[in-house]
Amino acid sequence: MAQVTFEEISASDFFYRNRDIAGFTNPTRAIFAAIRELVENSLDAAESLKIPPEIYVRLSFEGEASKESQIYKLLVEDNGCGVPPRHIPSAFGQVLFGSKYKLKQQRGTFGLGGKMAILYGQITTHQPATIISSTGMSRIYMYKLMIDIQRNRPIILDRKVFLNKEGWRGTVVEFSLEGDYLRAMPKILEYFKQTAMVNPYANLTFVDPKGRLYKFTRATTIMPDPPKETLPHPYGVDVELLQRLIQVTPYNNMLEFLKNHFHRVGEITARKFLEFSGISPSKNPKRLSHEEIVRLMHMLKKFKEFLPPDAGCLSPLGEELLKTGVLKELKPEFVAVHQRKPATYAGHPFIVEVAIAYGGEIPQKGGFLIYRFGNRIPLLYDEASDVSVKVINDMNWRRYKVTPDMPIAIVVHICSTKVPYKTVGKEFIADRPEVRREIANGLREVTRQLQRFLTRREHVDRERKRLGVFSKYLPRIAEFSTKLAGKEKPPDIEKLLRSVKRFGVEGI
Amino acid sequence: MAQVTFEEISASDFFYRNRDIAGFTNPTRAIFAAIRELVENSLDAAESLKIPPEIYVRLSFEGEASKESQIYKLLVEDNGCGVPPRHIPSAFGQVLFGSKYKLKQQRGTFGLGGKMAILYGQITTHQPATIISSTGMSRIYMYKLMIDIQRNRPIILDRKVFLNKEGWRGTVVEFSLEGDYLRAMPKILEYFKQTAMVNPYANLTFVDPKGRLYKFTRATTIMPDPPKETLPHPYGVDVELLQRLIQVTPYNNMLEFLKNHFHRVGEITARKFLEFSGISPSKNPKRLSHEEIVRLMHMLKKFKEFLPPDAGCLSPLGEELLKTGVLKELKPEFVAVHQRKPATYAGHPFIVEVAIAYGGEIPQKGGFLIYRFGNRIPLLYDEASDVSVKVINDMNWRRYKVTPDMPIAIVVHICSTKVPYKTVGKEFIADRPEVRREIANGLREVTRQLQRFLTRREHVDRERKRLGVFSKYLPRIAEFSTKLAGKEKPPDIEKLLRSVKRFGVEGI
Repeated sequence: MAQVTFEEISASDFFYRNRDIAGFTNPTRAIFAAIRELVENSLDAAESLKIPPEIYVRLSFEGEASKESQIYKLLVEDNGCGVPPRHIPSAFGQVLFGSKYKLKQQRGTFGLGGKMAILYGQITTHQPATIISSTGMSRIYMYKLMIDIQRNRPIILDRKVFLNKEGWRGTVVEFSLEGDYLRAMPKILEYFKQTAMVNPYANLTFVDPKGRLYKFTRATTIMPDPPKETLPHPYGVDVELLQRLIQVTPYNNMLEFLKNHFHRVGEITARKFLEFSGISPSKNPKRLSHEEIVRLMHMLKKFKEFLPPDAGCLSPLGEELLKTGVLKELKPEFVAVHQRKPATYAGHPFIVEVAIAYGGEIPQKGGFLIYRFGNRIPLLYDEASDVSVKVINDMNWRRYKVTPDMPIAIVVHICSTKVPYKTVGKEFIADRPEVRREIANGLREVTRQLQRFLTRREHVDRERKRLGVFSKYLPRIAEFSTKLAGKEKPPDIEKLLRSVKRFGVEGI
Repeated sequence: MAQVTFEEISASDFFYRNRDIAGFTNPTRAIFAAIRELVENSLDAAESLKIPPEIYVRLSFEGEASKESQIYKLLVEDNGCGVPPRHIPSAFGQVLFGSKYKLKQQRGTFGLGGKMAILYGQITTHQPATIISSTGMSRIYMYKLMIDIQRNRPIILDRKVFLNKEGWRGTVVEFSLEGDYLRAMPKILEYFKQTAMVNPYANLTFVDPKGRLYKFTRATTIMPDPPKETLPHPYGVDVELLQRLIQVTPYNNMLEFLKNHFHRVGEITARKFLEFSGISPSKNPKRLSHEEIVRLMHMLKKFKEFLPPDAGCLSPLGEELLKTGVLKELKPEFVAVHQRKPATYAGHPFIVEVAIAYGGEIPQKGGFLIYRFGNRIPLLYDEASDVSVKVINDMNWRRYKVTPDMPIAIVVHICSTKVPYKTVGKEFIADRPEVRREIANGLREVTRQLQRFLTRREHVDRERKRLGVFSKYLPRIAEFSTKLAGKEKPPDIEKLLRSVKRFGVEGI
């Protein structure tokens, strides 16, 4: 018989073996992914304190690795909340350890990206990473560490403590990694540009290996409210979650249990639901049998009267900001923006914001220009698999008299306490029917506005042509008639021209 | 200051929270993914013993879950190698535990799919899974278990041991899950069809919830050699791997270390490499410093004289089998197949096999029909992001006089000790340059053959037309001339017709 051996591997080892699924496929993708993951952690760290982010990224050349890749040193510094000293080693040297496992809108969702970057650096250069951090208290902590991949534990090589005389707060991460910056450059610059577009309150500085400085300066210091942590919505619970809540609840009756552990369930809704499902309000949740828990889950999904999730915990861009961003970056002739009402998939609230822009500096390229964002992260890879692209492809554009050869850009932003990414590398968003529907409805709304604009412009064009004919021939007719009548001053044809104008066509 | 809390989550908890990345996005995808993951484990289990697989899958309706989904019971039985009793609980109830963490061509790569299916069943129905297995020895073991998701450990609810009087060997997995079979049906049936196409030695039986029986009977009992476990190729090592090898090696000199731990490195190659990199053959690998290990890795990648990986450890389909499969399933007018020589990416050997089929029953649909396989697994989702599709889209088809409106089907099969999937759900393959190149070269080869066929067919068509004219008018001319000459029997025009034939056109 063949020998089949069984073994257990650590989470760290799993991602080491399968770095493709975290976006670290090759030296080009790896350097892009490393920068992006660290920048996003930095943005989250600053926003959690409602501080305008100040992020400095420096990539410097260290040497040749092979014909196709080089060794770089990457440094990312932020003015975020900092990491408490006792958590620094695990937060940077242990996979599946972190602060991101909350129901809260944030860029990071897997608590994985930063560590993958450090892990990738380690397996390609075997250099330790240096982390410097302070929460703004009296000390600054510096750790040099590597990851014990087989045991998924940080190895601390050095630790220093400094006095924080100037009250600095933030985090610096520095490590070496193999990469191909030349190939990655276009995507990296596009990443910074699009990040600046949807985070107009952030200062981003990037110094590339040639010493070129890219600076994206904030346009405002007004910060959106930081997203709040939220309770699970009853439509999204599964048996596992119910069991966990029952385990930890301090409440010993169903009424209080429902009111205190679920999003937007108050006294009245809770009572109505309990009546609907035939559960006594005084029933102790800890006494529910397996079967009763399963039934409770199904009833929660069936009950029609739960309020939709509250957008209060989400922090969308807002129509104004989105419009400003699009006008600034794309300089179109026309733009329409629309923010959908909050919706929910699997109990996670989400908001879709869309924009459609036409003409101006938007190139005509035989297809729409598509910008995708998830929780203010630009998504730059695997466009073809994204739910937005599927919706765009499926839409009946002809109905709106829109064709792919028009100079059109489409922006879709999805913000949620949990964006349903299809890959750990956050390249694209899964095709959840609820998300699809919201995108489609949003797109229809802005496209109708575009259609009205185009129709109006067509009328105006026709009118302009019609008036053109009048204004071309009327003076000649007037001149001819004047001569014919033996007069010297031709009649005032301006009045006549004005009287045939049907629209407020300017410039004629 | 905002409260940031840090926590550690288990691997099981990670995949529970992020089931999208494992393919369990919605009730439709979940039921497809569950069937597929278990069937693939079963195929691997039978092939590891070189036994023609005999797989029985039954999905039965249990009740309504909601408007859009139902509860089903899924049972998958195989005649594979079985699981040793002491490993059963962890093999089915603990994420990142398994027998798939080897350098070996197999369908499963993440050791995750079967457990994700059981985990998904548990969180949607809260029922335990039943596993029955025997390695063919004197006992059959039955376990009822659930997964403790927070601790990533199996919970054994029941355990029974039976005498194995009839020497049965194999595994039965049975559990309940929520799903939407009606929507998933087309993909599930397509999955079985395509699996049968590339596993012609397997018997597959599927009984669907309506009691419909789908039977895919084997066409041969000849089995390919089971893929062998292999050593890492020097081009694919990273520092982590070198360190692990150094940790476990019993050899105390570099020459033996290289010869015994790397794929296709013999005495001569090892000596040449050591000279090239200036390392003494007698150097003890355990004495290498960090810097020396990093240097060793770079030197291994730079050395040009390592032999390419040996295809012996891979088990491709072979051109004959691929051709048979395509002819049987697609019934085309023409087919060309090509197997590329083994290549390597990141040290993993891989073989690309491609086929192009034209005409016959292949529909004309304004685009090519694309079939993708990885280690004999049909890949049915997220086609647009797959490397094969990218290559197909980038190819200069006009050069081969091929246009997308022709009835053409393309098959790409990649087999490797590690297929670079982009998602844990194994939906599509990452865009590794080495893989891309092999697919492109393979496609060019078969497309050239198609071009020759098309050119020849065009000539034949033209000839057929030309001969058509002759054969239409010659008899009349002959008849007319006969009458005109006053004769009774017209001359033999067959000879004449044959003399103007330029090609072996049949049927004229």
